[in-house]
Amino acid sequence: MTTDQHNDSLDPAAKKTVLRWFTYGMYVVTTRDGEETGAFTANWLSQASFDPPLVMVSVEKDSHSLPIIRSSQVFTVNVLESGQRRLAGHFGKKAAKVGDKLADIEHYQTGSGLPVLNDALGYVVCRVTDEMDAGDSVVVLGEVVEAVVHREEGDPLTMAEAGFRHSG
Amino acid sequence: MTTDQHNDSLDPAAKKTVLRWFTYGMYVVTTRDGEETGAFTANWLSQASFDPPLVMVSVEKDSHSLPIIRSSQVFTVNVLESGQRRLAGHFGKKAAKVGDKLADIEHYQTGSGLPVLNDALGYVVCRVTDEMDAGDSVVVLGEVVEAVVHREEGDPLTMAEAGFRHSG
Repeated sequence: MTTDQHNDSLDPAAKKTVLRWFTYGMYVVTTRDGEETGAFTANWLSQASFDPPLVMVSVEKDSHSLPIIRSSQVFTVNVLESGQRRLAGHFGKKAAKVGDKLADIEHYQTGSGLPVLNDALGYVVCRVTDEMDAGDSVVVLGEVVEAVVHREEGDPLTMAEAGFRHSG
Repeated sequence: MTTDQHNDSLDPAAKKTVLRWFTYGMYVVTTRDGEETGAFTANWLSQASFDPPLVMVSVEKDSHSLPIIRSSQVFTVNVLESGQRRLAGHFGKKAAKVGDKLADIEHYQTGSGLPVLNDALGYVVCRVTDEMDAGDSVVVLGEVVEAVVHREEGDPLTMAEAGFRHSG
């Protein structure tokens, strides 16, 4: 009874409205373990600490990439640029449906072999330090161990600009 | 040696540039335990799960509010509106320096006694489900148990609009 009580008082429409006011950027997260690569569009992502520099990202439990992040313990965050809505849409598709999303997108490999997008403003490489179960997802925490700027000038792509919705 | 290796290869300027491209909203998080209230501006905050609806927020370890969130296991997220830069600045100050930040700001109490801002677009109440150590901060995860919309129309305040910086 006590457990269900709060759900009874939650107005689903209000919940959706408020959560959709949250502001997000759009990033392509990539990972690699041996021959296996993963790449997906993420928006539930934020810095989490200055010292050490940590990044947190919520990754869907049923995603292709989560097991790869877990086995390799490393991921990259590529910051998309304003205007790159198509890229965000491309990497937002399910790998199970479309196969290797990196196949037809220009990318190269970091020194440590991780795929990164040529067209991103820049990227960070994060080494996983912890994770936390979060409902249908897992919050992965990673320390920034490498950072590369492709272009100094440029505005990041925001969820608001892209007009996508992934919240509520 | 191995532990330090990655830090040697991290370019601090590039790290700062890339992390400052991350996109954020601006929220006032409040909490209360008995007579003790806490309220602070947060931007390292995101939804983390659809089902159940979870929100994650990075809270500084030395903040006034963290112990209150930990003891009460509940917090609210007030979504600030475009134009409310001053409010964001007000709640961004350290409670240790300025005292009760809610004293001179219009607010009311939810049914469960949590303070919320009259001028926010709306808010959610979150019950803490877990937390994860994150360097100088703690990532607190909470389930949305209540949601209230104050005004249907209105754009949220973004970090970009406010011109504040809290990342890098």
